[in-house]
Formats: sequence, C-alpha cells, structure tokens
Amino acid sequence: MAPNLDMLPTLRNGLPVVEPMNPEQVERIHQASLDILEDVGVVFRDPIALDDWKKAGADVRDETVHLDRGLVMELISTIPPRISYHARNSSKNVELGGRNSIFVPMTGAPYMRDIEDNRRAPTIADLATFHKLAHMMPALHSSAHHIVEPMDLVVAHRHLHITYSSMKYSDKIFMGMTTSPKNAEDVLDMCAILFAEDFLENHAVTTGNCNGNSPLVWDQVMLGAMRAFNRRNQPVLCSPFVLGGANTPASTAPAVAQLNAEALSALAYTQVVRKGCPAIYGHFLSTVSMQSGAPMAGTPEISLMNFMIGQMARRYNLPWRTSNLLGGAKILDAQAGYESAMTMMAVLLSGANYLWHSAGWNEAGMHCSIAKFVVDSEVCAMGYRMAEGIRWDDFEEGLAAVRDVGPGGHYLGHPHTQANFQRAFFIPKLFDNNSIEQWKAEGSKDVKERALSQAKRLLAEYEEPKLDPAKDDELRDYIARRSREIPAVDALNNEH
Amino acid sequence: MAPNLDMLPTLRNGLPVVEPMNPEQVERIHQASLDILEDVGVVFRDPIALDDWKKAGADVRDETVHLDRGLVMELISTIPPRISYHARNSSKNVELGGRNSIFVPMTGAPYMRDIEDNRRAPTIADLATFHKLAHMMPALHSSAHHIVEPMDLVVAHRHLHITYSSMKYSDKIFMGMTTSPKNAEDVLDMCAILFAEDFLENHAVTTGNCNGNSPLVWDQVMLGAMRAFNRRNQPVLCSPFVLGGANTPASTAPAVAQLNAEALSALAYTQVVRKGCPAIYGHFLSTVSMQSGAPMAGTPEISLMNFMIGQMARRYNLPWRTSNLLGGAKILDAQAGYESAMTMMAVLLSGANYLWHSAGWNEAGMHCSIAKFVVDSEVCAMGYRMAEGIRWDDFEEGLAAVRDVGPGGHYLGHPHTQANFQRAFFIPKLFDNNSIEQWKAEGSKDVKERALSQAKRLLAEYEEPKLDPAKDDELRDYIARRSREIPAVDALNNEH
Repeated sequence: MAPNLDMLPTLRNGLPVVEPMNPEQVERIHQASLDILEDVGVVFRDPIALDDWKKAGADVRDETVHLDRGLVMELISTIPPRISYHARNSSKNVELGGRNSIFVPMTGAPYMRDIEDNRRAPTIADLATFHKLAHMMPALHSSAHHIVEPMDLVVAHRHLHITYSSMKYSDKIFMGMTTSPKNAEDVLDMCAILFAEDFLENHAVTTGNCNGNSPLVWDQVMLGAMRAFNRRNQPVLCSPFVLGGANTPASTAPAVAQLNAEALSALAYTQVVRKGCPAIYGHFLSTVSMQSGAPMAGTPEISLMNFMIGQMARRYNLPWRTSNLLGGAKILDAQAGYESAMTMMAVLLSGANYLWHSAGWNEAGMHCSIAKFVVDSEVCAMGYRMAEGIRWDDFEEGLAAVRDVGPGGHYLGHPHTQANFQRAFFIPKLFDNNSIEQWKAEGSKDVKERALSQAKRLLAEYEEPKLDPAKDDELRDYIARRSREIPAVDALNNEH
Repeated sequence: MAPNLDMLPTLRNGLPVVEPMNPEQVERIHQASLDILEDVGVVFRDPIALDDWKKAGADVRDETVHLDRGLVMELISTIPPRISYHARNSSKNVELGGRNSIFVPMTGAPYMRDIEDNRRAPTIADLATFHKLAHMMPALHSSAHHIVEPMDLVVAHRHLHITYSSMKYSDKIFMGMTTSPKNAEDVLDMCAILFAEDFLENHAVTTGNCNGNSPLVWDQVMLGAMRAFNRRNQPVLCSPFVLGGANTPASTAPAVAQLNAEALSALAYTQVVRKGCPAIYGHFLSTVSMQSGAPMAGTPEISLMNFMIGQMARRYNLPWRTSNLLGGAKILDAQAGYESAMTMMAVLLSGANYLWHSAGWNEAGMHCSIAKFVVDSEVCAMGYRMAEGIRWDDFEEGLAAVRDVGPGGHYLGHPHTQANFQRAFFIPKLFDNNSIEQWKAEGSKDVKERALSQAKRLLAEYEEPKLDPAKDDELRDYIARRSREIPAVDALNNEH
C-alpha cells in the first residue's frame, strides 16, 4: 500500500495548554518587561528605526529607545491575532494563531548529514532534496527556505536560488530570506511574481524571521529586512535569540521577562512601520552549559520557558513561534531522540503556533540530517495526533463493544474494531515494534538506517508539483537579472 | 568533582496537570464505568474473592461479580489518598499521592543488555548490578524487585533471592513480588524481618502489583497475592493490563472507561479484604499495531489515555500509577529516545504518582538495558526538574541583573549569574553538547557508549549501604529455610 502523502490540515490543538504561571505571575512578567522597556530601553542599531521611533513618540537617547508602556500596548494591539497563509496549491493553505498551529522544518544548517549519513557541506541540489522531502511529509505544513546553506553558490546570490527552490519543489508555503534588506526585497519580488503583487497586499504567502541580539539589541540588517516584509504586508517572526545564562539572567523567570521585553519592542516596531501588518511573537531559546558555554537542547528550563512564553503571547493575543525537535547530538542517536521528543511535547502543550525547526535539526543546528528529517516528520505526525485531543464520536459504540465482548473476550474481530482500527491508534512506520527475531531477519537496522531507506524511496517517488511555465520563466529571468546586478562578493549572513 | 549521588526528595509536582476532559466528560467516563460494573460485571476467577464479594453484598453470578455503583463508591472511599513510604534508610522515605510522585525502575525483563551491550539471559548477579545502579541514581526513588529475571535460579525460589537483593544492595524502598500468594507472604515475612512485623502494620515499606486480565478479569494468583499485601497493610497497584485495540475497544475514550471499571473493581476489592488498607490505581498501557499485533510505546493515544486516567484517579482522590520511559526499540537508538521521552513528558504532565518502569525498559519490556537504565535515570532527573516548576525566589535579583548588564552586554561574569548558574539550568552529564571537533577528539561516542562507561564508573564506586548484620543473618536464614521447604520445581509466573 502506497503511503498517504496528503498534507495534514492545520493542527487545531484540542489539548489544554500548560500554564505554570497564575494570572498574578503573568502580570508580574508583563510589568517587569514594561519596566525594562521604559527604564533600560532597547537599542535599535539603525538610523531609520531610530527616526521612526522618534516620530512615533518614543524617548530616543542615542541608539537607545525607551518605550512608554502605553505606547507599546497601543502599538501591539493592531497586530492581527490570526494569519491565513496562502500556498500556491490552495489545498495547502494553513491558519496560524489561536489554537491553530503549523509544523515548519529546520533552516540555516551550514552542514548536512546526507542520504548516506555523511556529514558534509550542502549544495543547492541538497537543498532541493530537503524541499522535496518537506513537500512529501504529511505533518510538515511548509517547506521553509535555506534548510541547508547551499555552499556551492556565492553568498550574495544564494537567497535567489534558495527562494526559487522553495517555490519550485514544493507547493506548500515557504519562508523568506531576511539576510539583508535587499535580499528580502528580492524574495518579496519573487513572491509577487508567483502570486501577483496585489495578492501579497491581502494574503500572507511567506514568513520572514528577524533575530534580536539579546540582551535588548536589534540590528540594522534585521530591521531593514523586517521593514521590507512589513511594507509588503508579509508576516515576520520577531525572535529574540536567547542563550539562557549567557545573554539573559541565569534564571528562567527574569530571562522570560527580558525575552518578552525584546519581543514586544520589535513587535511594536512592526506596527510603527505599517499599522495592522502581521507579525509573530518569536524567539529562539537555548540554555547554555555554564561549564563549556555550549547551547543545550531539550532541557527542563527550555520547556518551562516555552510554557511561560505561551502565556505571555496569549496575554497579548498574538500568534507565536517556537522551535521544535531540537537536538544537540552529533549523530541521530538516542540523545537526539530524547532531546527532540522532550522539546516537541513541551511546545505542543505550550500552545505554540509556528513550530519552526520541526524536522532535521541536530548538533545544535550545525547540521540538518536527512535521516532525522524523516524521523522528526513522523514524530510530528504523532504529536499532531496527540494534540488533536480525544475523539468522542464513537464513545457509545465502543461501550457497546465492551458489552458484546464481555469479560475475558477479545476485540480484534469485533465490528467496532474493524471499523475503527485504522484511525484508533497511530502506527509509526519508522519505529520498529516487531519481535527481535523479526527485526534481526530484517537486518537488525536502527531507526537511522530505516529512515535513510525511507528517504531514498520517497525521493524516487517524488513528483514535482506543477508550476505555471510562464511564472517559472519569469522567476528564472528575475534570478538571472538580479544575479547580473548583484556583485558576486558579499559578507556571509547567518540566520537561525 | 565526584558526582552528587544523593537521592532527590519526593517530587512535588509544581506544574499544572493536563486535563483534556471537561467535568462532564469525566462524569461520562465515570458513569460508563459504573454501568459496566453493574451490567457486564467483572470476573473474579477465585473462590475466596467470590465468597468475599457475596459477604460484601455484591451480586455474584457464577464467577461474574456485578457491582452496584453505590457499593463501589463506598468501598473505594476508604482508600487512603496518600501513602508515606518508609525505607530502611529513613532519609530515603518518600511520599505518594496528591502532587507527590516517585520514579521507580522497570521490572520483569526476561533478557538484558549488559555492560557490553550484549543481549543475554540475566542472572541474580545481574539483578544485583541493577539494584546497585538504582541505589546510586539520584532521580530513582526505589529499587524495585526483579528488574531483570534471574534465570540462573529455579523459578520457585527466585522471589526469595530477588527480595533479598532489593533489600541488600539499596537502602531505598523496593517492590514486592506477587508471583503467587505464598511468594507474596514470603516477601512480607522478609519485610517483617527487615522492619519488624508491627512496623509493617503502620508503615508502607514495599509495593505489590496485581495485573488484571483485560477485559474485566482478575485471576486467582493475583488476587491471592493482593490479599497477602492488603492483610499486612502494604500498598498494591491494581493494574488492568491494557493492550489498546486487542483487549479494549479500538478507541481511547471507551478503552479508558473499561480500564477505569477494571481498576475500580480491584480497588474496591482491596477494601473488602481490609478496610482502609493502601491501594494504588494502576494500569499497564500499550496500544497494539493492528498490522502485527505488536504492542507500541510512546504513541499519541497512550499519552492521551494517561491524561484521562489521571483525571479519573483524581476524581476518586486516589494515588495512581503509570509506566514511564517505555520503548519498543530493540537497541538504544533514536527510536528508544523518542518513545521514552514522549512517554515521560506525558506522564509527568498527567500528574501520575507512581512512575514505574522509569529506567531501563526497551524492546517492549523484553529486555532491560544497562545503558538505557543510566540514560533514563538522567532523563528522569531532567523531567523532575521540569515538573518542579518555576522558581521565583530570585526574580527581582534577576531583573536587577538585566538593568546592570543593559543592552548588548553579557551575563557570564555578573554576580547573579555566578550565584545561580549551578541551579539555573540543568546540565545533563550523558548528553553531549560539545562541538563536533571536541566530540571527535573524545572518540565520536554515541550516548550508549558514554552511558556504559558511566555505568562502569558507578559500579566501581558503589558502596553497599550498611545492613544490620543480625537482620542480614535472619534474612539469609529465612531464605535457607524456605528454599528447603519450597519444592524446586514450579510453574513460571510473569509479572509486568
């Protein structure tokens, strides 16, 4: 039986959220963040932003913007609480915000583990492979952008080819590069080709990410890219980049107060740029080993902070982003599994909407693994099923089966079982539950080997989603023109 | 620096519980379970139990006991909601019930993966190894009983040596064998030697487990062993053994209704045997692959059912048991990590009290792995830290650090960081977060190899907790006498 590769619809999270703070504690974080914004202020290392803030009535001293609590709350009040995303295949449109969540693969890996599990520098062809896999994975709602960094292309031209690859090999929504303001404009121009300029004005089709430099700094590159997205009415993730203990206090609650202040300052700025434009409360969250300085994944404090950040985002009625299925392992061993699953369970129960880095992330983001990409996608499907919650539609029928079967009987042949077994219990394809004898007979493979075989099968079966040839030509012409215009030498920009 | 091997105190769970059912849905399950108990009834395959039930006023027809809802609710109302466990080292006493939870290692494995990761039949010496490790793991609050089955001993005498090993190599609480009524009596006689008979009368020192045969059957061996524990006032787990879809309806809500009816019937029976004796709402929960019949671990439905069962146990104000860190993988690969961590996160957030099978379980319980035992124990410590919840005691100091450091600074040298870094963020010992260069320099080891090295170090450092030589002699004499009395040929009894 061929696997069903239909994309799952937007996750409507049916489980209650985990809220470890009482309303007073939420308010305590909220007020602490507003105090930070008023008293300490936030550095916007960008003349345009400083000028914008002055015009908006903020108290600007050199590069530090002191934000009055009333101004912040007024500004963020115009951010839409929900976003409807439009894919080039409209059957793959998704919703974000409230109880609606989507799974998005990892991005930004400078290395990959390839189809033979070799760790090496990725190429644009490898990126296409990941876009194809993202296209085929039912639980992934988006194909992202530079899942791996195409090292065979000059930095200055990469964003063009990355964007094209996102658009070409998958018909799901995708992310847009924000490595510079001009790069962001290129991405949005290409979106305008794919969807039409006026379509962008009224429909979210891509997502940009703007990382903050914690503590309390936003830089020119990120702000410029953010503005490009804001002006075209495309959503941006406002993501403080938190390495807990290194660039925040060594304590979860004050770290969240700082992160919340940082997110609010950028979210407020999006509304200075364009009132009513979509924006997403973001963050990248790690904790740091105080012994080595290394970032860690799946730690208890990351889970707790995700629960808390969810409460803050809901306090402001904003859609929010987190990072899913992170791992610090160098290989797809049990460590990667434990870390990734702990992260996923916490973020699903935190109620996060934009579940970035949902597939492939290992080695603290230094590589994307094909094997892990495939396994993570299946684990996301398991998480999706859990988060949907409990089905009650066949409760009475199930109880009738209890009466039919009676003490000491079994259910395997019962009509209710026959009618419901396919949907009743999730059966993972990559997780082996056979006997050890069967497992040995099949070659004693670990899940990594099974996943790589699965990836090979999927890629062999991949069918490219049809792209209008006229648009395809127009996109290629755009890339050719911009490649001529943009000097081939540039600085490397990273994004997480 | 030598690792701190002090046992963590009872987990006081500070996170809210995940409750996917509204009060009406809890009531719907409750009423459905009572309907099952009244109308379908439960088979007690045991003449003594049938006689007890008749005397208690139940409607007994052949072996089927129909339980009036009023009788069930009256009986379970006398079960203590909390249990204080006493260890032979009183600094390792723990509490169970309400928000108090304990981690207990796996039991019942017929195979093991040893210190070289070879899968083989275990011996009584191997069991001692696991008891030593359980003794040394801070997050484990108990040493359990037959973590692995000592295959080198005749079945009929195993319970004696297993119990002695539990008592000898660890001074934490332990579990008591329930493989037959007489075996249970032996365990309790040995507990009376270790603690004194009248101490048992007023203090919980061990835990028995009684598995049900779902659907709706309790057998003579389990009921006889249960009575032995009830009479000596020692807690029993009343555990329906659920393979969802095979011995329950293929649907989570009616499956929980059946499981709840089964648990209530045994819990009620404990109070027929001895009013007021401690008992724990138990279950073993798996879902079954409808393709192969294989039990699965870490599936979304297991998580959902754990959330639901927690709500039912709280509805009755009863302490409850679940299974933690289960895996179906044949080796300690990423599958085992994903499955185990998904299970742990769900059960911690379900509010379960007695977290059995918290370390070592893989291959659907067919083996206990030394490597996984050590890794799971560390993951339990991570889960413990998460479940403790958020610390607020240094919130104002943390905010003061934000003001001190200001935009663009860093926290590594700040006094608040210096004072708090050791407790602020959990740093796993077995999870590698170093750079790939460092990891390669250290031999490119996966977490399994690191765990086996760690296990070797721990066992080399193990110090046996002092046992009163007079009691030790008395225990040995008891075993010698009973070994003479019990014929060496017997049927194999399993327990999960």
